[in-house]
Amino acid sequence: MTQPVPQDLLGEIYAQWAVEMQAHPDMSLQLLRIMFDDWQRATAEPAGVTYRHADVAGVPGVWAEPLGADGDEVVLLLHGGGFALGSSASHRKLGGHLARACAAPVFVADFRLAPEHPYPAAIEDALAVLAAWRAEGRDPARTTLVGDSAGGNLAIATTLRLLASEDPLPRQVITMSPWLNMENTGATLDSNDATDFLITREGLQANIDRYIGGACDPTEPFANPLYADLTGFPRLYICAGSVESLFDDSVRLHELAQKHDVDVTFSVGQGQQHVYPFLAGRTERADQEIAAIADWYRAGLSR
Amino acid sequence: MTQPVPQDLLGEIYAQWAVEMQAHPDMSLQLLRIMFDDWQRATAEPAGVTYRHADVAGVPGVWAEPLGADGDEVVLLLHGGGFALGSSASHRKLGGHLARACAAPVFVADFRLAPEHPYPAAIEDALAVLAAWRAEGRDPARTTLVGDSAGGNLAIATTLRLLASEDPLPRQVITMSPWLNMENTGATLDSNDATDFLITREGLQANIDRYIGGACDPTEPFANPLYADLTGFPRLYICAGSVESLFDDSVRLHELAQKHDVDVTFSVGQGQQHVYPFLAGRTERADQEIAAIADWYRAGLSR
Repeated sequence: MTQPVPQDLLGEIYAQWAVEMQAHPDMSLQLLRIMFDDWQRATAEPAGVTYRHADVAGVPGVWAEPLGADGDEVVLLLHGGGFALGSSASHRKLGGHLARACAAPVFVADFRLAPEHPYPAAIEDALAVLAAWRAEGRDPARTTLVGDSAGGNLAIATTLRLLASEDPLPRQVITMSPWLNMENTGATLDSNDATDFLITREGLQANIDRYIGGACDPTEPFANPLYADLTGFPRLYICAGSVESLFDDSVRLHELAQKHDVDVTFSVGQGQQHVYPFLAGRTERADQEIAAIADWYRAGLSR
Repeated sequence: MTQPVPQDLLGEIYAQWAVEMQAHPDMSLQLLRIMFDDWQRATAEPAGVTYRHADVAGVPGVWAEPLGADGDEVVLLLHGGGFALGSSASHRKLGGHLARACAAPVFVADFRLAPEHPYPAAIEDALAVLAAWRAEGRDPARTTLVGDSAGGNLAIATTLRLLASEDPLPRQVITMSPWLNMENTGATLDSNDATDFLITREGLQANIDRYIGGACDPTEPFANPLYADLTGFPRLYICAGSVESLFDDSVRLHELAQKHDVDVTFSVGQGQQHVYPFLAGRTERADQEIAAIADWYRAGLSR
C-alpha cells in the first residue's frame, strides 16, 4: 500500500518526528520534549501579540497578550503532548492566534508533566490557576478553558473537578483534537492509522503509562472523560481532523455531551491532521477554524 | 578531574545537548536542527515586542518589532549554529531583547544553511537583504549587523564583501562570541575545554566541513575573517564569555581590529558561556550585556 504524503507543514513535522522516533527508539524524555517543542514550527507568528513569562499560583507559563485588548476576559490554554511533552514554547504562537482572534489574554500554562508528576498533578495545576484568578477577583463567567490533545482532556477533567466540588465553572470549554480514551481503544486508531502522521497506539500507550500508570484506572472519569457524567457541563466546542487517529475521541465526546444536554458544537476539519489549528497563519482551513472558535467564544461571553 | 556543574540555564541546556549528541552520534541533521532550536529556552520573553514572519529579498525570517519604535533604523541579526543549525525560532527572543533595548526592528534572517547550501550562500543571503533595504531607500548608515557564533563570522564576512565591492557599509557590526577560526586551532579550544559545556573540536570540524568543505580554503578571509584586512571596517563590538572554547577567536578579532585601526569595543563576560546574551531576562549579567550593546548601538547612530 502506498503511504500518503503529508499535505501540509503540520503533516510534514509529524512525519519527521515519526522518522526520528523510529530511528531512536531509546530517545530520552528530555530529547522527546525538545523535539515536541518543534510543534511551534507549524504556526506562523501572529501579528500584534506580545508575550511575557509569568507565574500564576506557582504554575509557570507565558501570557500571550493581544494589543488593544482591555476587557476582563481571560483564557487558560492547556497544551497537548500526551501529558508528558509540550510546553508554553510549543504552543506560544497557537495561544497568540487565539488571543488575537478572541481579543483576550491567553495564559499558556507549563503545568507539571508526567511521568515525574502523574495524574492528577496537571489538573491540580489548572485548578490552582483558576482559583488564583478567582481570588484576584476575576469572574469565572469571563474565563474560558482551552486544551488540545491531552490538554483537551485536562480542560474537561478540570471542569469536571469544579463541577464535583460545586465550585464556579468557567464560562466555556474549547477542545482541539482532545485525547480522552485512556483504554487506547478508539476505532479510528486503526481506520485512520494510514492517514495520521503522528499518532500510534504504542506512542499513546507510553503516555498513558506515564500519566496514569499505577495512579488510577483507565476508566476513571477525571482521567478518561468518556466515562464522565457531563450533566451541568458548560458550553463546549470540539474540533478535530477527520483523518486523525484520535478522531473517535471527539466523536464520542460529542455524543456524550449531546446525551447529557450540554450545549456542544463539533467542527470537523476534513482531511486535517491532529490539532490542525496549529497551522494558524499558514493554511486557510486553520485560519477558518481559529475564526470559528473566536466567533463561538464571543457568542458565549455576550450571553 | 571533577567536571564543573553548569551555573546557569544556558550551561544546562548546552550540557543536555552534549549528553544527547553523545547518546546519538548518528543523530540526523534534521534532529540536530530541532535540538538547536531549543536555544530559545535560554531566553525569557522580552516585554513589548511583536513578531511577524516576512521575506526580504527571498530570504525568510522573523521581524522582532518593539512597540513604539518609529525611527528609520534597522538591524539584521545573523544567527549562530555553526552555519548548519539555528533559526529565527532559536533566536527570536534574543532578537526581541535587542530590538527592545535598541528601540529598533530586528530582522532575524533564516539564511540558507550548510551543507545543503555551503559557503558563500549565507553571505549572499545577508548581502541580498542589505541590498533590498538599500533599494527600499533605507540608509546603510542607519543599518546595523549583528551576529552570534557562526553568525558573527557571517556579519563580518558580509561587511568585508561590501568593503571589497566598495558598496555602502552598515553603520556598525555587533558580534557575540564570534566563531571565525576555520582552521580549528584556537588556543582556548583546549584551555577552556573543561568549562565550555557545548563546543568540542569535533563538533566544530563537522560544521567547518559542512560550510567550506571543498568550497574554499580555511584561510580564505571571507570564510575566516582572522585572515582579513579590516582596514576601513565600521565600528565593531565584540562580546564573549571568558570560559568558552571560542574565546580565542574574540581575542584575536579584537587584536586584528586594533591593528587595522578599527573602532572596536571588547566586552568580556567573566565566567560566561558561549553567546551568554541568550540569557537575557534570566541573568543580571546577560541583561547588563544587552544594555551595554544598546548603549554602544545608540552612540554609533547618534554620531
